[in-house]
Amino acid sequence: MPDPIDRLASLFERFPGIGPRQAQRFVQFLLRSSPSVRREFISGVQDLGGSVHQCPECMRFHTGKKGPCSICADPGRDLSLLAIVASDADLLALERSHTYNGKYFVLGGLLSLASDRLGNLHVKELTSSLPKRVKAGLAEVILAFPANPEGDSTAVRVREIVTEENVPGLSVTTLGRGLSTGSELEYADPDTLKSALDNRK
Amino acid sequence: MPDPIDRLASLFERFPGIGPRQAQRFVQFLLRSSPSVRREFISGVQDLGGSVHQCPECMRFHTGKKGPCSICADPGRDLSLLAIVASDADLLALERSHTYNGKYFVLGGLLSLASDRLGNLHVKELTSSLPKRVKAGLAEVILAFPANPEGDSTAVRVREIVTEENVPGLSVTTLGRGLSTGSELEYADPDTLKSALDNRK
Amino acid sequence: MPDPIDRLASLFERFPGIGPRQAQRFVQFLLRSSPSVRREFISGVQDLGGSVHQCPECMRFHTGKKGPCSICADPGRDLSLLAIVASDADLLALERSHTYNGKYFVLGGLLSLASDRLGNLHVKELTSSLPKRVKAGLAEVILAFPANPEGDSTAVRVREIVTEENVPGLSVTTLGRGLSTGSELEYADPDTLKSALDNRK
Amino acid sequence: MPDPIDRLASLFERFPGIGPRQAQRFVQFLLRSSPSVRREFISGVQDLGGSVHQCPECMRFHTGKKGPCSICADPGRDLSLLAIVASDADLLALERSHTYNGKYFVLGGLLSLASDRLGNLHVKELTSSLPKRVKAGLAEVILAFPANPEGDSTAVRVREIVTEENVPGLSVTTLGRGLSTGSELEYADPDTLKSALDNRK
Repeated sequence: MPDPIDRLASLFERFPGIGPRQAQRFVQFLLRSSPSVRREFISGVQDLGGSVHQCPECMRFHTGKKGPCSICADPGRDLSLLAIVASDADLLALERSHTYNGKYFVLGGLLSLASDRLGNLHVKELTSSLPKRVKAGLAEVILAFPANPEGDSTAVRVREIVTEENVPGLSVTTLGRGLSTGSELEYADPDTLKSALDNRK
Repeated sequence: MPDPIDRLASLFERFPGIGPRQAQRFVQFLLRSSPSVRREFISGVQDLGGSVHQCPECMRFHTGKKGPCSICADPGRDLSLLAIVASDADLLALERSHTYNGKYFVLGGLLSLASDRLGNLHVKELTSSLPKRVKAGLAEVILAFPANPEGDSTAVRVREIVTEENVPGLSVTTLGRGLSTGSELEYADPDTLKSALDNRK
Repeated sequence: MPDPIDRLASLFERFPGIGPRQAQRFVQFLLRSSPSVRREFISGVQDLGGSVHQCPECMRFHTGKKGPCSICADPGRDLSLLAIVASDADLLALERSHTYNGKYFVLGGLLSLASDRLGNLHVKELTSSLPKRVKAGLAEVILAFPANPEGDSTAVRVREIVTEENVPGLSVTTLGRGLSTGSELEYADPDTLKSALDNRK
Repeated sequence: MPDPIDRLASLFERFPGIGPRQAQRFVQFLLRSSPSVRREFISGVQDLGGSVHQCPECMRFHTGKKGPCSICADPGRDLSLLAIVASDADLLALERSHTYNGKYFVLGGLLSLASDRLGNLHVKELTSSLPKRVKAGLAEVILAFPANPEGDSTAVRVREIVTEENVPGLSVTTLGRGLSTGSELEYADPDTLKSALDNRK
């Protein structure tokens, strides 16, 4: 029987950005907490399964009524645009920027470089929804992935997949590249400088 | 009713070193995990309450049999020394250094600078155990706290408390100060230089 | 008479990125060096005045023959493009990227936010050269400044200055903004996200 | 003939803590500076050779009158103590701490791990001064080197050298080791913990 302290620590090590030492600190924190704090924490995790729903349209998690989330239910959004993002966090970043009023679709991750399995990504949910979306006015799919190798290879695959659906009048775009806020030419990589020159205006 | 996502995120924010953004990432991680992973995690936290015991002598948490921990039960430890440490992690650091063979007592925290309440610290467990420990041979209490303001003020208070117990023949010491591995004179603070000079040998 | 050590240290403090402590280290380094090392250093600085020339066309420093630098003398460069950069280092970064084959002009700095004096910048050299450059085919001035407040306000001023020259057929562009290599949506600022959306393609 | 820009940059690369990119920035800074700034800088370096003297007693550099520096000339210093330090910077750090009133000797560096040549260190100046210093009351040599491998091996060698001088009644000490300000037990290395325990008081 493995040590409960080590076992919980190894579960915390799977959390994003957590190493062995911080995982141990988390366990010590819970050990030193009162039983009522631990119970509160356990019920917090349990509640995720109960009162949190995945929006059947954009696949993000929300806690409103079961069914479409508040963005998908909002009649004021621009139906001609669909931004495909990797995660709920990326969706929320775009919302916070107040620069986008179209719809979203959360893919649920990125292709890893080690494997290009689409296994856990919501690809089928995306493609099966396209005809209905186009009928409702969708004209452009925006691949809004991070500017890194995983984001790039995911964009390539999703573009192929959407293109294979052969939806007439549907264009696929990617986010613009160039200098981002704070970029200095002296330290910019050649790809960014090339994009900055290509996209000058 | 508060949002379960935000509620769990605010619980994670109480974890040591975790800010709002990482707390949200933890919740998203659990949301995206399968129900079986969440159940495993919940049972891991529940197990802390069941199979983890607090050693009644040194107050650290362990997973052996109920009762004294392996260090407190070890007949080979030097009963004349008692190192009082803030946390299980500090105790383990001293053990890893293989330079100490006395007994330990885990205070369970430090006095904060904002308040000097001893509330959560195991002061009563410490003082009530002193007569028995002295009878068993205890001659020196070592205040092994970090070299920072919280550690210093905790050392001052614990020294007062132990001294008030008026145990004949019991001395109270603190860890030596000076250059620590890697210290350069040019960047050392005056207190460290003073200790390094005072403790030269 | 000020102390020579402190006087030289205060000269080193004017070097980019050098604080008081490192300036003192530089002086100590020179003090501990042999007189021949100091002489070599002195002659190195003196040589800058002798064998280094400022290109009369792009204003960058070079060590070829007096007169135009190798880039300005190269007949293979595209005369229709003129990239205005802040520094020689930014010019070299663009060259290293192998994505630009036009001409350059080094402004010699950026407007600071504290003052918008153009004093030290080569504005007159720029404007006086425009008619000749346009006659030779110049069609587009590219403001290639860093994506920070100083770069932005310099771009605004240089655009005004070039526009006031009233050169027919001359357009002024700025480098494209958007995600730069490595950017993640979650951590991108709203301006960058807005540019990335606006410049999608 | 090497390029004067690159040649000066390679001289700057020898400065402590300066890499190729910052060396190039320094050259660009001097290139962009006015000739009068460069002349001021050159004369600043030249002045080091003229008006800066090395104290014949402690070997540090100073700008007072030729001869002993202000510390060595101060009749109020404790002649029974001699702190041997690696550099002027370390001497000044001890002075700033206001915890030491003895004399100093600047060794001029540390033994490197790659080579244990004493070549550039002022060992002969140290040993030849010992008889006179002892006659004047010197009783203790304090090896005040940084707590790193270079400092440790230098301490070992200097201790040997001083001991070989066979001066009756002269003791050799090293700075005390232990927790330095800010040290936490959890992150302290075993050597520091051992010293902290050994030097408890």
